[in-house]
Amino acid sequence: MKLNIALLAGDGIGPEVIDQAVKVSNAIAKKFNHEITWTPAITGAAAIDEVGEPYPDSTHEICMAADAVLFGAIGHPRFDNDPKATVRPEQGLLKMRQKLGLYANVRPTFTFPSLIDNSPLKRERIEGTDLIILRELTGGIYFGERGRKDNGNTAFDTCTYTRAEIQRLAKLGFEMAMTRSKKLCCVDKANVLESSRLWRETVQDMEKDYPEVTVSYEFVDAVAMRLVQWPSSYDVLITENLFGDILTDEASVISGSMGLMPSSSIGVHTSLFEPIHGSYPQAAGKDIANPLATVLSAAMMFEDAFGLKEEAELIRAVVNKSLAEGIVTEDLSGTNKAYKTSEVGDWLAKNI
Amino acid sequence: MKLNIALLAGDGIGPEVIDQAVKVSNAIAKKFNHEITWTPAITGAAAIDEVGEPYPDSTHEICMAADAVLFGAIGHPRFDNDPKATVRPEQGLLKMRQKLGLYANVRPTFTFPSLIDNSPLKRERIEGTDLIILRELTGGIYFGERGRKDNGNTAFDTCTYTRAEIQRLAKLGFEMAMTRSKKLCCVDKANVLESSRLWRETVQDMEKDYPEVTVSYEFVDAVAMRLVQWPSSYDVLITENLFGDILTDEASVISGSMGLMPSSSIGVHTSLFEPIHGSYPQAAGKDIANPLATVLSAAMMFEDAFGLKEEAELIRAVVNKSLAEGIVTEDLSGTNKAYKTSEVGDWLAKNI
Ligand SMILES: CC(C)[C@H](C(=O)O)[C@@H](O)C(=O)O
Ligand SMILES: CC(C)[C@H](C(=O)O)[C@@H](O)C(=O)O
Repeated sequence: MKLNIALLAGDGIGPEVIDQAVKVSNAIAKKFNHEITWTPAITGAAAIDEVGEPYPDSTHEICMAADAVLFGAIGHPRFDNDPKATVRPEQGLLKMRQKLGLYANVRPTFTFPSLIDNSPLKRERIEGTDLIILRELTGGIYFGERGRKDNGNTAFDTCTYTRAEIQRLAKLGFEMAMTRSKKLCCVDKANVLESSRLWRETVQDMEKDYPEVTVSYEFVDAVAMRLVQWPSSYDVLITENLFGDILTDEASVISGSMGLMPSSSIGVHTSLFEPIHGSYPQAAGKDIANPLATVLSAAMMFEDAFGLKEEAELIRAVVNKSLAEGIVTEDLSGTNKAYKTSEVGDWLAKNI
Repeated sequence: MKLNIALLAGDGIGPEVIDQAVKVSNAIAKKFNHEITWTPAITGAAAIDEVGEPYPDSTHEICMAADAVLFGAIGHPRFDNDPKATVRPEQGLLKMRQKLGLYANVRPTFTFPSLIDNSPLKRERIEGTDLIILRELTGGIYFGERGRKDNGNTAFDTCTYTRAEIQRLAKLGFEMAMTRSKKLCCVDKANVLESSRLWRETVQDMEKDYPEVTVSYEFVDAVAMRLVQWPSSYDVLITENLFGDILTDEASVISGSMGLMPSSSIGVHTSLFEPIHGSYPQAAGKDIANPLATVLSAAMMFEDAFGLKEEAELIRAVVNKSLAEGIVTEDLSGTNKAYKTSEVGDWLAKNI
């Protein structure tokens, strides 16, 4: 099979972890007789430095022409504390999501038995956790009208949702629930927000099309609590963009395996696969970052973008083997030997 | 001293837990020679049933005339899954916050050594946690313009903040930081929202007035993570209304003592004291709810609204004694005898 993949390494540790995912993917291609064409493109702070734009048109064209996008991470601290910066790496992320129509961010949270004791939560709280948060990614307050009034002394942002946007995301949620435990939780703030009331109304209307799915409706503040108390009580959650931003990050730390969590973003034009961790600038260039989340994102890509399930399973099996044999970077090595980012990648590729 | 207190019991377990706080406060008044006038007023679902309005004018007048308001909880599940309900108990809460000008919700999260093992977090993660979240309570998306367009198929909410609103809240935060470890964290989403950029800009401008305070700026998604990972690394946090809603609830479960956490809301016209837990309708009328959060809210009231520190300390000491001696409700009793709500209240009052 011919796989045409855009490669967006991004900032910080992005390039290093992407390199390992490429090694592993190439080993897979060799073994299963696929032909991968990688087309690299610039993005984030790196692209700002080069062309003054975090998601340049040239990068967009490469993504549009690709069957899938493999993404590292973007962001640089030099932009963070400068509220007046006019170009920010994150704008590239938002522009990319919008222009590629990446409407659904799929964020699984699961546990690795061998890593469960890394969780800040007690073992009995986290054991058995296997949930997916589906975050709407191209609507809401991220993309609404915003600005200043009153000589800059008043600022506003607008959260807007249409029924169609909600239906599109919720449909994915219902379908995903059907392939799992048939439990769906709609997370909103319907006791305050009109947009949340439209979410709840729309999802309620869809319930009749999925009679087997049991839907619960919970307020975002309650979910923020229950995710810490009883994460294993959740299965598939659907929510709007900003709530999803907060809850997916909260969920990511409870498993104790944040450095291993992959994600995908399902789009109208293509889909994108990326680790959930950030660009971790302090570690950039040191060959110490954990590449497993990016490698597992590549596995998700083989399965979801190309339907290559066996390839995906092999990657996951090799990752599990590396964990079992302690071929891991310093964040997971404890008192044992820590391997370099590139060494982990080499080992994984060799073991494919 | 004459203490003129409005008593808003509210819904669910509200009346039961409020009763115990009244018993304890009366015992304090007797011992220290104060004269408390309690003026009860209706609110929440109870008020909807009685007069069709969750925060009636008559209740507002009573609050305005009082030196402080002691509040139970409001909310009833029969309103939750009805997106078309036109009157909701929570509207009473919002109207009350706005009309009383309760602009700052003060939410401490701390641990009780004897209860630390109730936390979903491991002991070493939660030990030493003592943080305060200051949530802006009368602005933001809670009170902005909202509505429907396009035959009801589009819904919008607006988040608006003025520099003055931010300064008022941030000032409290800086002052509180000065009395504690001089560390302040401003929580926002300045990489996306214009209102957050105004928050960050405003707080940055205020830094020069508090040269001793070290201010950090963190994104709300990062804080949602770190609160679970290293809660003890925080001290005073300031944030806007919706982020505060989510983060205060998240913080409340990490201590393992959610049923014990008090809160206050500082207002322009008066201040209000309430437990952070909800109306817990399943337990209503059963005399099993834990009254300690409400009793500790009364302690906060003695100290913050009336400057009666010794009285507050005595209440806290008696609460600690009840915990040490196991005079606790079923949520804390484990395999030991569970006391009734009213029995705990009686015991506390007797031991004052
Ligand atoms: C960088 C930021 C704009 C982004 C978001 O808020 O969506 C990030 O937090 C994420 O979740 O991908
Ligand atoms: C009931 C609801 C409107 C309220 C809020 O969101 O402010 C509650 O969650 C709270 O935090 O007091």
